[in-house]
Amino acid sequence: MPDSLADLCLDLARRAKAASSALAVANTTAKNAWLLAAADKLEREADAVLAANATDVAAAPGFGLSAASIDRLSLTPARLTAAADGMRQVAALPDPVGEVREGGTRPNGLQVLKVGVPLGVIFFLYESRPNVTVDAAALCVKSGNAVILRGGKEAAHTNAAVHRLVQADLPNHGLPPDAVQLVPVADREAVGHLLRLSEFIDLTIPRGGESLIRRVAAEAAMPVLKHYQGNCHVYVDDMADLVMAERIIVNAKCQRPGVCNAAETLLVHADVADAFLPRVGRALAERGVELRGCPETLKHIPTAKPATDADYGAEFLDLILAVKVVSTLDAAVAHIARYGSKHTDAIVTRDVSAARRFVAAVDAAAVCVNASTRFNDGFEIGLGAEIGISTDKFHARGPCGLRELTTYKYVITGDGHVRG
Amino acid sequence: MPDSLADLCLDLARRAKAASSALAVANTTAKNAWLLAAADKLEREADAVLAANATDVAAAPGFGLSAASIDRLSLTPARLTAAADGMRQVAALPDPVGEVREGGTRPNGLQVLKVGVPLGVIFFLYESRPNVTVDAAALCVKSGNAVILRGGKEAAHTNAAVHRLVQADLPNHGLPPDAVQLVPVADREAVGHLLRLSEFIDLTIPRGGESLIRRVAAEAAMPVLKHYQGNCHVYVDDMADLVMAERIIVNAKCQRPGVCNAAETLLVHADVADAFLPRVGRALAERGVELRGCPETLKHIPTAKPATDADYGAEFLDLILAVKVVSTLDAAVAHIARYGSKHTDAIVTRDVSAARRFVAAVDAAAVCVNASTRFNDGFEIGLGAEIGISTDKFHARGPCGLRELTTYKYVITGDGHVRG
Repeated sequence: MPDSLADLCLDLARRAKAASSALAVANTTAKNAWLLAAADKLEREADAVLAANATDVAAAPGFGLSAASIDRLSLTPARLTAAADGMRQVAALPDPVGEVREGGTRPNGLQVLKVGVPLGVIFFLYESRPNVTVDAAALCVKSGNAVILRGGKEAAHTNAAVHRLVQADLPNHGLPPDAVQLVPVADREAVGHLLRLSEFIDLTIPRGGESLIRRVAAEAAMPVLKHYQGNCHVYVDDMADLVMAERIIVNAKCQRPGVCNAAETLLVHADVADAFLPRVGRALAERGVELRGCPETLKHIPTAKPATDADYGAEFLDLILAVKVVSTLDAAVAHIARYGSKHTDAIVTRDVSAARRFVAAVDAAAVCVNASTRFNDGFEIGLGAEIGISTDKFHARGPCGLRELTTYKYVITGDGHVRG
Repeated sequence: MPDSLADLCLDLARRAKAASSALAVANTTAKNAWLLAAADKLEREADAVLAANATDVAAAPGFGLSAASIDRLSLTPARLTAAADGMRQVAALPDPVGEVREGGTRPNGLQVLKVGVPLGVIFFLYESRPNVTVDAAALCVKSGNAVILRGGKEAAHTNAAVHRLVQADLPNHGLPPDAVQLVPVADREAVGHLLRLSEFIDLTIPRGGESLIRRVAAEAAMPVLKHYQGNCHVYVDDMADLVMAERIIVNAKCQRPGVCNAAETLLVHADVADAFLPRVGRALAERGVELRGCPETLKHIPTAKPATDADYGAEFLDLILAVKVVSTLDAAVAHIARYGSKHTDAIVTRDVSAARRFVAAVDAAAVCVNASTRFNDGFEIGLGAEIGISTDKFHARGPCGLRELTTYKYVITGDGHVRG
């Protein structure tokens, strides 16, 4: 046994690196067989996981968890089956490793291929929802990466039980057991130790609250795939179909308010404020949405509260919506540039030129035209699964699926070619 | 005028960010027109640049520059024409901005496009060769990025003259003059200030010696595109065509020994050591290459010096080659994993299975089969131009051309689509 926390973390990272070499050359059949077997095992041995989860749920009030957080923490047979089905879906996706992404033959006869390869070792930190343990293990192993999992302390028993099940089957399929490791201690300092091990860990992915992600990004010696916030906007242009606009903002705000691609601010062109704001105000009020508006908004929706500057920068993750009337499309774009989080912003318009200008000028991972911001999602855009959404511009932007967990190498083949 | 170095750097970065917004939506015709006009201007006003260069060259011995470094610093009319031609070649390349990289229509009718967009602002640091000023300005502007250039102090007059010429023409083509800025002070602290400005600078690219790059990577608050070293290997398999192997190692070592994709270590399978080492030893000796070998190598090439462990980790950038006899392909792979720099490694073999195993097991930006390591180069693999070679796995790996200076955004278009 390692004799200090630093040694324990170094040992975890070294094992992961060693496992990643074997995993990088594992074939797809073996990885898929493991995914399917582990999915079956999760369902077959559900009782062990549910018992561990009951222990965590019982202790949750002691950690000060809200009712909503306890609900996220709680597993049911249906939620476990959904997690198992997620593994089966990952098995069905194409393997990004070995994929020839580009290729050709140069005029001198040299063949140049750009071939997908794993990143190596991924350190994955997350909070609460234990199904994320299953998703992360599935996506990392399928993409040929070893993963070090670090869940929240409030889910410690559940994560350990899930980890035990999914890890146990790896050797049966010729895969290294250290391909999926769980940080075995609750000590927060372990995270700090691991974030320094850039020699062994190729990428850190934090998922959770903004403060966790900022801490990780500040401390990590390796690249970090992340988004801090999803402060998403819906801009209703003067050329918008107002029925469509109402449907989109109601969906973007209310369909699942606690997620990063939910809308937080509604921008309305002044020319349609009179026609649009009263009706959308009623529709949102019926769904329990609290509106916080600029003075112009308050004229049309007297029940709205006055918005502060902080409201325009906020990610409410709740049934609250900031509203502002803008005089032009450019003013909407400027507002988004100032307050936005480069995550997802939408325009509702009938005007092709307005849509083109908005798409070109808004700097965000995803820009939606006449569609809800909720579509910026790995499943919805066709990636099949996602490990998170990036608002960074380096490496991958937007939803990150299997391919975004890989890099590539050039394979250059000749018949004795030399440079002249 | 800003009243401190920190303010001056902040001002540079802010101007670059503002310029990048305009540049991101500039059309290809304007960018190409600038490239062609600036190329013509470089040739037409060559005298001003050559005079500035003469000042730098005269001062170079005072900076302690070697004869080789002074040669790299020196411009001639031919070298200026080559730089101008480089701009014309960049003009001829496809624009990565606006390029639809993937796209399709989801089952619900939603159109999802993945569209190339610039990274934003690039901070480019480099040493000596003043033609890099031209290359970097051309590649950054064509890819829609504003660039802050920081050359070496030994090339200060030359870089200022080149910068003046290429910047002057930007407004004539509707492009912001701050798209290409040069750090106007020699103070080394300016670099430290700029490396902290991650709010304005999206990417730093350092090119030069390993110590410069390590300093930049350690200090930068933003992503860094880089390679530290090119410690490239050529492995001669027991199934190699030995005539081909000799041709490849001679080319990889001697054709241009001072560059990152030149070979630094030759690994030879024990079964062909007897047949291969004496002949390749003679061929390399004839070209003035100093050999440093393992004890087994010395038996076959008595004129070689004994290699130290440090020799196997060295990037000589000179006519020196480390040599080692290995017992198997796996031993060659293990040697490369231990000493290599993940840049470029080659195998010479007739055996398809050996080639496949080597390609799969060697973790490097480029793996060559029966071809010289010198082919890991943006021009040679067909990128048309390159800003550098990355040995990182995040974002871009290997030669980085125009596309590697961009990211993408998702553009999601519907007819009022909402999530169910």
